[in-house]
Amino acid sequence: MEQQAKICAQNGEGETHMVNLSSDTVTEPSKAMKEAMMSAPLGDDVFGEDPTVNALQEKVAELLGKEAALFVPTGTMGNLICVLNHCRTRGSEVLVGDLSHIHIWEQGGVSQLGGVHPRTLRNLPDGTFSLTELRQLVRGVDDHWPTTALVCVENTQNMVGGRVLPLAWLDELGVLCRELELPLHMDGARLFNAAAALGVPPSRIVKDCASVSICLSKGLGAPVGSVIVGSKDFIKNARRLRKALGGGMRQVGVLAAAGIYALDHVGPTLTRDHAYIQEVARAVVECKSEIIKCDPASAHTNILLLECDPEALPPSHLCERMDQVTDEEVAAIGERVVARILPITDTAVRMVVHCDITHEDIQSVINKLKYVIKEFDGKA
Amino acid sequence: MEQQAKICAQNGEGETHMVNLSSDTVTEPSKAMKEAMMSAPLGDDVFGEDPTVNALQEKVAELLGKEAALFVPTGTMGNLICVLNHCRTRGSEVLVGDLSHIHIWEQGGVSQLGGVHPRTLRNLPDGTFSLTELRQLVRGVDDHWPTTALVCVENTQNMVGGRVLPLAWLDELGVLCRELELPLHMDGARLFNAAAALGVPPSRIVKDCASVSICLSKGLGAPVGSVIVGSKDFIKNARRLRKALGGGMRQVGVLAAAGIYALDHVGPTLTRDHAYIQEVARAVVECKSEIIKCDPASAHTNILLLECDPEALPPSHLCERMDQVTDEEVAAIGERVVARILPITDTAVRMVVHCDITHEDIQSVINKLKYVIKEFDGKA
Amino acid sequence: MEQQAKICAQNGEGETHMVNLSSDTVTEPSKAMKEAMMSAPLGDDVFGEDPTVNALQEKVAELLGKEAALFVPTGTMGNLICVLNHCRTRGSEVLVGDLSHIHIWEQGGVSQLGGVHPRTLRNLPDGTFSLTELRQLVRGVDDHWPTTALVCVENTQNMVGGRVLPLAWLDELGVLCRELELPLHMDGARLFNAAAALGVPPSRIVKDCASVSICLSKGLGAPVGSVIVGSKDFIKNARRLRKALGGGMRQVGVLAAAGIYALDHVGPTLTRDHAYIQEVARAVVECKSEIIKCDPASAHTNILLLECDPEALPPSHLCERMDQVTDEEVAAIGERVVARILPITDTAVRMVVHCDITHEDIQSVINKLKYVIKEFDGKA
Amino acid sequence: MEQQAKICAQNGEGETHMVNLSSDTVTEPSKAMKEAMMSAPLGDDVFGEDPTVNALQEKVAELLGKEAALFVPTGTMGNLICVLNHCRTRGSEVLVGDLSHIHIWEQGGVSQLGGVHPRTLRNLPDGTFSLTELRQLVRGVDDHWPTTALVCVENTQNMVGGRVLPLAWLDELGVLCRELELPLHMDGARLFNAAAALGVPPSRIVKDCASVSICLSKGLGAPVGSVIVGSKDFIKNARRLRKALGGGMRQVGVLAAAGIYALDHVGPTLTRDHAYIQEVARAVVECKSEIIKCDPASAHTNILLLECDPEALPPSHLCERMDQVTDEEVAAIGERVVARILPITDTAVRMVVHCDITHEDIQSVINKLKYVIKEFDGKA
Repeated sequence: MEQQAKICAQNGEGETHMVNLSSDTVTEPSKAMKEAMMSAPLGDDVFGEDPTVNALQEKVAELLGKEAALFVPTGTMGNLICVLNHCRTRGSEVLVGDLSHIHIWEQGGVSQLGGVHPRTLRNLPDGTFSLTELRQLVRGVDDHWPTTALVCVENTQNMVGGRVLPLAWLDELGVLCRELELPLHMDGARLFNAAAALGVPPSRIVKDCASVSICLSKGLGAPVGSVIVGSKDFIKNARRLRKALGGGMRQVGVLAAAGIYALDHVGPTLTRDHAYIQEVARAVVECKSEIIKCDPASAHTNILLLECDPEALPPSHLCERMDQVTDEEVAAIGERVVARILPITDTAVRMVVHCDITHEDIQSVINKLKYVIKEFDGKA
Repeated sequence: MEQQAKICAQNGEGETHMVNLSSDTVTEPSKAMKEAMMSAPLGDDVFGEDPTVNALQEKVAELLGKEAALFVPTGTMGNLICVLNHCRTRGSEVLVGDLSHIHIWEQGGVSQLGGVHPRTLRNLPDGTFSLTELRQLVRGVDDHWPTTALVCVENTQNMVGGRVLPLAWLDELGVLCRELELPLHMDGARLFNAAAALGVPPSRIVKDCASVSICLSKGLGAPVGSVIVGSKDFIKNARRLRKALGGGMRQVGVLAAAGIYALDHVGPTLTRDHAYIQEVARAVVECKSEIIKCDPASAHTNILLLECDPEALPPSHLCERMDQVTDEEVAAIGERVVARILPITDTAVRMVVHCDITHEDIQSVINKLKYVIKEFDGKA
Repeated sequence: MEQQAKICAQNGEGETHMVNLSSDTVTEPSKAMKEAMMSAPLGDDVFGEDPTVNALQEKVAELLGKEAALFVPTGTMGNLICVLNHCRTRGSEVLVGDLSHIHIWEQGGVSQLGGVHPRTLRNLPDGTFSLTELRQLVRGVDDHWPTTALVCVENTQNMVGGRVLPLAWLDELGVLCRELELPLHMDGARLFNAAAALGVPPSRIVKDCASVSICLSKGLGAPVGSVIVGSKDFIKNARRLRKALGGGMRQVGVLAAAGIYALDHVGPTLTRDHAYIQEVARAVVECKSEIIKCDPASAHTNILLLECDPEALPPSHLCERMDQVTDEEVAAIGERVVARILPITDTAVRMVVHCDITHEDIQSVINKLKYVIKEFDGKA
Repeated sequence: MEQQAKICAQNGEGETHMVNLSSDTVTEPSKAMKEAMMSAPLGDDVFGEDPTVNALQEKVAELLGKEAALFVPTGTMGNLICVLNHCRTRGSEVLVGDLSHIHIWEQGGVSQLGGVHPRTLRNLPDGTFSLTELRQLVRGVDDHWPTTALVCVENTQNMVGGRVLPLAWLDELGVLCRELELPLHMDGARLFNAAAALGVPPSRIVKDCASVSICLSKGLGAPVGSVIVGSKDFIKNARRLRKALGGGMRQVGVLAAAGIYALDHVGPTLTRDHAYIQEVARAVVECKSEIIKCDPASAHTNILLLECDPEALPPSHLCERMDQVTDEEVAAIGERVVARILPITDTAVRMVVHCDITHEDIQSVINKLKYVIKEFDGKA
């Protein structure tokens, strides 16, 4: 898809306006971020001697209110290390949402590499799950059963459109986990979006979590990297797991510096991304289409799900159409706009705003989207 | 619980009539079965040289219409070997029912020992699952995803009260699995009960299965052992897995002989067990209790679920009461009956009939159960 | 090989005297052992309710001077459970002899199924290893290293011809393991042979071991089964591992009864097996062959290694010849003797005596072996 | 140790000349390398869309004469992916040198995370192993045995002082592996040092290897990263393993750009590092010390092992002394030199030269080392 857009641009049709809303992982470091990367003091982080990595780790630990932190190459490794670290003993089971990234999008690594057995809680449309179901699924002591060793949540939750878990529910979950003596891990790949949406510090959100993983390379716009936090002991053993998995890098302060910059300079702009999503959502609602709909109220953060009538419009058709340009369309909206968005389920398309997206981009996407919706409505 | 019953008996109150309906795994070999065990020719089965084991394997392979079979110590190992055998390659995922024995009662061995990631299909009240859901959960090719490598069913299905999977649904599942190019494994721990209930040969039921595990030590009444079947290649590699797991025994024809006897002499009596369950079920229905109910129509085989009103009667209370005897009760029903049954969920008690249960036992249990139900109804 | 021998017998040449010295696993239960099996009280051992299994476990625990014991189907599972039990935590390493059964003959199960990394100590010709090397291989604390969690020994040691580990060395090893705070596991598949050879109780030999596995189906002559011992806590968790691996059987008292009989009635006869091996060894020495040699002094127990001159005689040739009969040979030694022995390395053949071997068998084997050695010497 | 040196420098004693020879992983990117990093075109490498990563991968594949390549965060992950990729099937065994990085320094990840059983070949002093031993250790087909699936070599070999494997031996090994139908993996963390020392292209060295991992962050001086190469199919599946392990990074072209620069500009300078090591080695030899010795002929590349007489001088004492400065010493050699070197075995200290080391550094280290050796000799 991007291939196509690029060829288009190379053909000298330089006037094509390409807007990549496929994911918030596609951002490229700004000049200022690059300067931060280049001027950072470095060292060998395998020996714990990279001052920039250490500074990032201290910064994130403090932001999340935990004792210690560890830089890791990816969110997938961050979650994997945390699950394996909590499930240190043979025969452990993890309770995860059935729509969670850990369960669906990480190749089953907790089982494949770590021998941890997952049992799923049914994710509700708001990203939560029933605490009654949680209580029921916790294993007692019986040789037939693995040992429940961990509960995981994801915040914001990707598969339900970046929704923020309600604080009241999280607090109740925290109480329950303490009662059940189960640690709670949060996949906080987009935790800073949740904090921005709630208007609270991230430490408030994760106060009952024994561990959290956050991504620097999603909404925060750094090129690479995630950070996990927890107690000192937890992080000490996480270092061992990172080494075993092959995540212990050398002068990686060059990446950590981007992370520090992202936290300082991109983090505060996340509400802007959320506002852009609302602009698009309102525009879609105004179209009053029967074929393409969305719910602005549930678009809490930088993600919008466009629900397509499965009879009339497979999600992939909408994505393909947004990736193409017609002469009529250019005549109507006055510019050549190519927008990259991706199907995420059998009925929905996902659109993600990030720090490389300008208000001009959003306006162009809205214009194109309105035109395309009208086009599909006309065909129906 | 049994402890108590035994002490009771040892006190010289020999007139106590103990009936163990806790599971069909509790049977003891009959005299005739023991004679078969003692007279069987033996050899070292690690070298494939135990003629009785070989005879059992050929017999089961033929009964199930597959190329080859392998004796294994338990049903848990049988299922584990089959799942690991189908999921031979790193990064495999298995689709299993969320109420299946493999997922709930085998300590998560497929992940713990084999690194296989499970994804669950929601079991419906009849033990089936939605084929549409199955189609949706099958993974495509994507680095984020494990590879769907196997679908598992359980027949009869323990957690829904020993219900038999409908043949029409199984056939449809078989067609779908072929279309999806996915092998199908059946946990047929109680397959012979299903065959008896349907009045068809077991080979008919498993015709679309790439592998099946059956238990000799449940309804069939042998003391120990299970058998798995599949293609010659499948069984050849299953031998390797059995060896690695520590299931390759020596002169184990002594157990295989019991299995042969069980298939020949106990198998044909399974319909009797099913009839006994119906007798009990009808008696419970006749009580017209609001507190303890059951559904004879869904008690397809040798298992009966007694549903307890959770407000009025926790399942464990019913079990405890059936394990005790009162003077009033003896006066009313004319004998001292102790019946062992077990709670299986938060609202249900499971009762299982097996070859060691006589019609006299069933009559006594019915008398006692009626008395106890009336007693609970009176208290409500 | 056996195939051939059997056909021979079936051809009506009933006078063939077959002696199976391939392994001590090939024994068949005697009439008396079978009677013990048939009369044993049984129960469901998954619930811990088989009185015969419980009796066997108590008996073995007492014989080995440990708190508790667990019946398991095989020695392979016994070792696997013990290693996985000691190496309960992710990232563990086990130190094992490079000629040990655990490292060579158990399909690498500790890694394959349990994720435990093995590091090998070089086994010396007497089955021991250097304690200095042990000290060097123990890992310190470093993220690059797994954690040394266990040391294993094998006694008697199969691959060096059933040699008994010297008590003084074992004691020294015990002291070192305590100093290093490492548990010691003994693969005591043939521990009772070691005890018989040393003339000490088995508890003396294993006094410094945290766990031991012993086989009932080798020298002791039971058809199936092994027992592991350790502390109460160790065995409690071993039950969990046995369940996960699929080793939790039902009315398995039928096998445990054979184990009790074996300990009581076969155990005391092991010195006889050792004496038979010495008879054979002396006979070989008397031949003064340059091609086939053996060392009676190192044949401590029921195993004899025949060293073949690799230039003149591949071990497999000797085994094939012992499995055949010539007319000249019958004329010379006066009977048709077929002896089954197996090559164990590129230069050695292993011969194992067990409870099914009579003195007459040994005489016949000696006569044949002398004849065959002379024959090979003549050709050289 | 470094801590100390830094404090020293911070105390205003700016004249201290610190030389870090602890490892070639400690290099920091030069200004020119940083400029390459900052100007590189980027993209999301999870989607294969980072042009700089793609360029690096193509470059390394071509340099090593293989079809395809993959950027990975570390050498540990590179080796882990390669071993798991070759050992894709349950029950695999890998043959590795007993002194190899994979076996000793990667936390046993192949077993811990991948269930692969290692069996060790004894590394000879020149880093090779006996091909006869290799042939003996390869497993046949037997249920007791895992399946030999891979042979690994390391070139240059770290633990024997960075020695280069002889080409003739490698060729012979290649022939043997083809005969045995076993793939050969080379841990080529320092392959470019081997190529520089031999004066041949790296593709010549790895011609018989099915896969190779090379490190950009050792002698080549990039801050982070390794690359693995193999066939297209191999690399396709390696991407899956990288994703599962959490090594799939986003705009990681920022690191790949350093790798390209390193190959182009640092690679050609490796012979300089080797010459520096020879200078040091000759200086040590000239001291004619009985306590500290080295063998220039076996210092093939950028590593020098200083052998300490274990009776007189524990390696850690030498390292500590090199990290300290005395007034007498400053008076004698005319400057304050602090050199960081590390003990690598019980009798040896390792010194590693890299691209951040100048000839002036080497002169200073030599002066100090001579002084220190004389000092120790004087005490002896």
